[in-house]
Amino acid sequence: MYVVVAYDICTDNKAGEKRLRKVAQTCQNYGQRVQKSLFECTLDEATLAGLVHDLRLLVHPREDSVRIYRALDFSSTHVIRLGRDLGLDFQGPLIL
Amino acid sequence: MYVVVAYDICTDNKAGEKRLRKVAQTCQNYGQRVQKSLFECTLDEATLAGLVHDLRLLVHPREDSVRIYRALDFSSTHVIRLGRDLGLDFQGPLIL
Repeated sequence: MYVVVAYDICTDNKAGEKRLRKVAQTCQNYGQRVQKSLFECTLDEATLAGLVHDLRLLVHPREDSVRIYRALDFSSTHVIRLGRDLGLDFQGPLIL
Repeated sequence: MYVVVAYDICTDNKAGEKRLRKVAQTCQNYGQRVQKSLFECTLDEATLAGLVHDLRLLVHPREDSVRIYRALDFSSTHVIRLGRDLGLDFQGPLIL
């Protein structure tokens, strides 16, 4: 399934900065960064459960916010992209 | 349809800060802020076209990024929320 993870981590203090780094690292284990605080992931149900579990351990319940959406898909038909694009095309040829 | 708008506006200069304010204001005309740079909107096709048009006029093509996703829906079945929640429940009773 296609999953979008958006986070807003409170970085008013060192602990928040550390959480921000850990949340970003965790998301990188599951998907592709497309904006500073936005990841696109293509996951099965079990892997999604793993992502949610990992993030739940990191996120501060009152200071941070993480929202995980199920998207229709990540093709250009279903995602409208304006401006620059950090993302790679998973469907396209992989050039190493 | 259920639409998620995520933006990442380059605020290295005054012009960027102005774009950020305008992008946020534009999104507020169409939906509900749920994180600093994330909005949920429930729109028909024509209104989505209006949102895309308005944002396209604001976004810097090389410095900013806006991504607009079609989500399955915004119920708790389809959006996993961790941490604090800025969002209101559109489906719930409206208390004024």
